[in-house]
Amino acid sequence: MLVIFGASGDLTRRKLIPALYDLYVKELLPAGFAVVGASRTPFSDEEFRENMRTFLPGTEKTDLFSKMLHYLPFDPEKEEDYHLLRKRLADLGQEKQTGGNLIFYLSTPPSLYGIIPARLHAAGLSRSDRGFRRLIVEKPFGTSLHSARELNVNLLHYFDEEQIFRIDHYLGKETVQNMLVTRFSNGIFEPLWNRNFIHHVEITSAETLGVEGRGGYYDQSGALRDMIQNHLLQLTGFIAMEPPAVLGADAIRNETLKVFQALRPLREEETATMAVRGQYLSSLIRGEKIAGYREEKGVNPSSRTETYAALKFYIDNWRWAGVPFYLRTGKKLPARVTEAVVHFRHVPHHLFSGIPGYQPVSNQLVIRIQPDEGILLKMGMKEPGAGFHVKTVNMDFHYSDLAGITLPSAYERLLLDCMQGDATLFSRGDAVEEAWKFVQPILDAWENNPHIPVYGYPAGTWGPQAADDLMEEGPWRFPCKNLTDDGTYCEL
Amino acid sequence: MLVIFGASGDLTRRKLIPALYDLYVKELLPAGFAVVGASRTPFSDEEFRENMRTFLPGTEKTDLFSKMLHYLPFDPEKEEDYHLLRKRLADLGQEKQTGGNLIFYLSTPPSLYGIIPARLHAAGLSRSDRGFRRLIVEKPFGTSLHSARELNVNLLHYFDEEQIFRIDHYLGKETVQNMLVTRFSNGIFEPLWNRNFIHHVEITSAETLGVEGRGGYYDQSGALRDMIQNHLLQLTGFIAMEPPAVLGADAIRNETLKVFQALRPLREEETATMAVRGQYLSSLIRGEKIAGYREEKGVNPSSRTETYAALKFYIDNWRWAGVPFYLRTGKKLPARVTEAVVHFRHVPHHLFSGIPGYQPVSNQLVIRIQPDEGILLKMGMKEPGAGFHVKTVNMDFHYSDLAGITLPSAYERLLLDCMQGDATLFSRGDAVEEAWKFVQPILDAWENNPHIPVYGYPAGTWGPQAADDLMEEGPWRFPCKNLTDDGTYCEL
Repeated sequence: MLVIFGASGDLTRRKLIPALYDLYVKELLPAGFAVVGASRTPFSDEEFRENMRTFLPGTEKTDLFSKMLHYLPFDPEKEEDYHLLRKRLADLGQEKQTGGNLIFYLSTPPSLYGIIPARLHAAGLSRSDRGFRRLIVEKPFGTSLHSARELNVNLLHYFDEEQIFRIDHYLGKETVQNMLVTRFSNGIFEPLWNRNFIHHVEITSAETLGVEGRGGYYDQSGALRDMIQNHLLQLTGFIAMEPPAVLGADAIRNETLKVFQALRPLREEETATMAVRGQYLSSLIRGEKIAGYREEKGVNPSSRTETYAALKFYIDNWRWAGVPFYLRTGKKLPARVTEAVVHFRHVPHHLFSGIPGYQPVSNQLVIRIQPDEGILLKMGMKEPGAGFHVKTVNMDFHYSDLAGITLPSAYERLLLDCMQGDATLFSRGDAVEEAWKFVQPILDAWENNPHIPVYGYPAGTWGPQAADDLMEEGPWRFPCKNLTDDGTYCEL
Repeated sequence: MLVIFGASGDLTRRKLIPALYDLYVKELLPAGFAVVGASRTPFSDEEFRENMRTFLPGTEKTDLFSKMLHYLPFDPEKEEDYHLLRKRLADLGQEKQTGGNLIFYLSTPPSLYGIIPARLHAAGLSRSDRGFRRLIVEKPFGTSLHSARELNVNLLHYFDEEQIFRIDHYLGKETVQNMLVTRFSNGIFEPLWNRNFIHHVEITSAETLGVEGRGGYYDQSGALRDMIQNHLLQLTGFIAMEPPAVLGADAIRNETLKVFQALRPLREEETATMAVRGQYLSSLIRGEKIAGYREEKGVNPSSRTETYAALKFYIDNWRWAGVPFYLRTGKKLPARVTEAVVHFRHVPHHLFSGIPGYQPVSNQLVIRIQPDEGILLKMGMKEPGAGFHVKTVNMDFHYSDLAGITLPSAYERLLLDCMQGDATLFSRGDAVEEAWKFVQPILDAWENNPHIPVYGYPAGTWGPQAADDLMEEGPWRFPCKNLTDDGTYCEL
């Protein structure tokens, strides 16, 4: 059984229930599976079901699936509600023969991450001698190194690390997992995957959206906390990790942890030179005025919260010594795209350099995470005709080319993994803390040093010029080039 | 000016003149360019032009181009005809201001390769103090090591090596040249391009046609002489060569020569175990009876000439020690395809091997020379869905994807190169002899040892079973799989 705390929230209706429905249709749910939604709203089972159907197709299967959904009005602060919950779970468990397995999903505000595990424990729901007890925690896993540590201490007081599944939906994406397969199933990559042949690595997560009504929340967070500390550093972990000894959650997570441990911390003076922050300004896009960040609802009109962040850093280990890594993320950028680009070194000797118009080939492996999931390899080939004119062409593979394949949603994959007890794609507490350790000094400097600028960038552009200057190795890859007349905006 | 000996032959009308026409349309011919066709047939200029237009489009440009074509009835055995030729060239040269450059194209039977250069020399046409004199020789460059040496001695008696352009039209193909660009402009390949990461190399040239009325000629030749000694060994040279010091005809040809010098000769007993010969048998393809080789016109009914040959061999140098190379070619195979396949080694540790249904990924770089010129990389990727199921997918690039590009024909490229004095894509005498040195012991064994079988294979199949057994590293790549009902025939 899956218990969702905060079941009346958006995430449940938009992501979790549709993911469970897809698993149901694919017959991947265990026998006797049931969902118990728990939150303050006083729904009946029937009302909850109706509410959840908003994002489901209106089919016969939906009717059958809905019958698995149950609801319990629940105040997470009230101790007696946990006893009601236990009673309800026992009844349902008997009725449906669920086998006693329980997953608790914390889809609540983080302020409740302290009390719910404690009360579950007190009500005897965190331990069992039959069936498993697992706890899924949604991000943010803390808002600072300090609070992340506190959260871990609290969670581990009531649950074991093996029971805790910290969900980072980025890791549920096919292309992220494909990074592991690409690296470790292909003999041609491992020999190249190191400082001898890789020049630099670039990871971008760009959004076209702004804060979309969540200005109040976002203004307390910012791009570094919201995207880099978790998603982009996790991607970095997968790209940079050593081959794990075996294919298992702990073997793989040990290796990503080692990457985080090897991140070279930015020195205080580097927080201004190797990190760039920005905030989107109002601009005109196709004649329409777009609000700047400080004009958004809920945002402090003199806010210095970054909506854009770019970082340069190094990984101090044998494989990556001297190879710069670049991360960038931002809101109101010209395209919605997440991708990692591995830039290989040039050939050691340019045989074709004497040919007029010669441009050295930059071999790039582009791992596209969204949209248009796939892999792209930029290669030099001969331009047809006389001579040896070298032209860079794309060899690519799109997941959409696989006939009859629909990519499972990230939540679908992750919920299934949790049911099966596979924590590979979930963040482990120690890794979360290591990532915070790297990010915290930058956050501190940005908060405390008024001399570190918050660069403005017009909404619909690729961020501040300072981010371009950050990368000495050449320009960032601009995955989308079809700019409109004003030269600043494009869509994929 | 280009003088074509054997101008009434098929090659002139089908290949040379259309290639010159294409160069004309692209304005790549030098000012005052003219062609003089020379052969025994008593054409007038006008008749020659009419005859040549068979394979040209009927446009205004064709009319203008035709005016460049001239003809001289010519008996290569008659000394005085060379004086007539000289006179005609002098007149035309003056009239058209050609600048005194002369290319002689031997498109005649090889039996004339001795006399024409000698008589040209005697007539003072092989040397000049203004303009160049070049000699293009069509294959075969000898029919044995001995005759190849004789041919070279004779040619070099009258022309310098720098003046001699031995044409191998395979080397004029874009994708063959692209091999050099792919290898030497991409930083990602050179580190992998050696015995540490390459498992074996496979080169196939398959034809669907049979001897097509040329049975008399073919029966004296066979697949080893006709395809392997020249085309496939040249491809091997491009794949296996060391990076040349500079981009120049001699630098590149020195490197391919070194490859030929490093070919490990087959020992006598290996001519039966590392080489396989076959002959196509009559068969039924889609209900139609196809004649076997021995039933073809002009073929000895008890012929032992091979229409199929496959070889395994090694290149004894630091880069390739221990890496088997496989060549195969044949007539009446299921597809018309020429391609080179570089098989990379498997990953050293199979991380995903515990997953049910796991198949190790064989990374392959397929260089497609014809048809559908391009490059294909076979890679392991994650199959969407739970777990880490590895699937082999194709990343590919087709030359036809380059918008607005038509690939120049091989002859177009090679004629232009010869005019420009670039011999990179022409065979050098020493390399031709080295290739013969490798092939001759096999020819000798096949000719002299009746115990070495000539395997039959039904027309429309991929050759004898013995060729499959030859490759220990796994199956040959069968580029075409859409077999018809009888299970033997397919088309690309």
